[in-house]
Amino acid sequence: MGASQKMNPLDNLRIVLVHPIYGGNVGSVCRAMANTGLKDLVLVNPDPSLDWDAARKLAVAATPILDARREVASVAVALADCGLAFGTTARIGLYRAHAGTPREYAPQILEAARAGNRVALVFGAENFGLANDELACCTHVIQIPSSPDYPSLNLSQAVLICAYEIFVAAQVYVPPTEPSPVAPIELRERMLEMWRELLCTVGFMQPEKETHMMMGIRRIFARGQLTENDVRILMGMARQTSWKLRHSLNDQAPDDPSL
Amino acid sequence: MGASQKMNPLDNLRIVLVHPIYGGNVGSVCRAMANTGLKDLVLVNPDPSLDWDAARKLAVAATPILDARREVASVAVALADCGLAFGTTARIGLYRAHAGTPREYAPQILEAARAGNRVALVFGAENFGLANDELACCTHVIQIPSSPDYPSLNLSQAVLICAYEIFVAAQVYVPPTEPSPVAPIELRERMLEMWRELLCTVGFMQPEKETHMMMGIRRIFARGQLTENDVRILMGMARQTSWKLRHSLNDQAPDDPSL
Repeated sequence: MGASQKMNPLDNLRIVLVHPIYGGNVGSVCRAMANTGLKDLVLVNPDPSLDWDAARKLAVAATPILDARREVASVAVALADCGLAFGTTARIGLYRAHAGTPREYAPQILEAARAGNRVALVFGAENFGLANDELACCTHVIQIPSSPDYPSLNLSQAVLICAYEIFVAAQVYVPPTEPSPVAPIELRERMLEMWRELLCTVGFMQPEKETHMMMGIRRIFARGQLTENDVRILMGMARQTSWKLRHSLNDQAPDDPSL
Repeated sequence: MGASQKMNPLDNLRIVLVHPIYGGNVGSVCRAMANTGLKDLVLVNPDPSLDWDAARKLAVAATPILDARREVASVAVALADCGLAFGTTARIGLYRAHAGTPREYAPQILEAARAGNRVALVFGAENFGLANDELACCTHVIQIPSSPDYPSLNLSQAVLICAYEIFVAAQVYVPPTEPSPVAPIELRERMLEMWRELLCTVGFMQPEKETHMMMGIRRIFARGQLTENDVRILMGMARQTSWKLRHSLNDQAPDDPSL
């Protein structure tokens, strides 16, 4: 498998749909795959009535995945070159007692894929799911957590959950980082002192209740992690308001407290 | 609220779809909600062309959720009784740098819901997502991890990921015992409006920068979970300061804005 340093484990993942019936679902699967960095789609014996126009429409910008799909005649052929195959089921019963969740299996799937093994995620038809003999071809059984009142997910939704869990586990995604660091205590205290002065000036706090009221205000500002930018905004609000109060008798004063 | 021992926190979760266009998506959202134990669906201004037959078909066995949906005219109305609102976005940019993932937010969402607060998950239209002013009504921004090559998920897929993360977390999550009623959106908005007026009066914001500045202030107040008490303190601060400004020419005025 030529374990290149730069290999993306997601490139070794394959989505296998067994006898899919609805084109819209196949298209939605393509989009979900694109959303989660997957590319390799294999259809086993798709239904002759499958609406390929609907598939194309629902794939939206993921039509390259639809176009690159392969169609094969059996689950065995679809999985022939795979080291691991995870069959999905919503039913409880024979062969299904040992099912794990996508989140439980995600690290194992990634480890195998990173080592150069092809790994398949196998999904049954919309009406019946995977048959016992199809599930038997798989090395593992996956069950997606869902409500006992309605456990059966739409096909493309089931694919999305499995692909999403692996995508998240792969940590390909870089979350947006807070652009401003958390404000240091010293800056917070300067801000709080400006507010204390202002709130005394406007008569919001009586002197004997000042400590108590300021504790409430401190708590408000401590509920979240204020960044430096946040604190500077809060300082600006207090500074400008104090300035306006001082100059409210003098309309000709320049309208800038920093002057 | 009546914190019953048997309260299911998922009952306090609301899915809000803003201007949905495609019936199939609305139906798929209903099914995804049933799969993950949710019930409360609100549509904001659904498109007149929305195909309700398609919605019914895709909902499959989740038609009770479709039938129980409410339709309202604005995001503000949809969120009026919610303590927290998580807006979803696939875009990076202004106001979106502070997004968290559904998995990161799931414990916080459950904690608030378990304490009896209604929590909304808000999703924009299929074509444009949430507008800035719609996102502004939300207390938090959620970004679903997805491939940079194709970050935009189908509407029902986006709903599923968020609902699934909360559903999974609900099974393992042990609630801390500090019940503190989060302020409802309506009260927060009244408070923010008082501050907007005050900050315009003192010249803190130039009119052309008002929206931008208020977004920064909204974010500050969304960093932590403000309680009703917190919001009433913040309202009192703005009210008293505005009063003082109005009466700063008149020292004889009584020193109580409530008079």
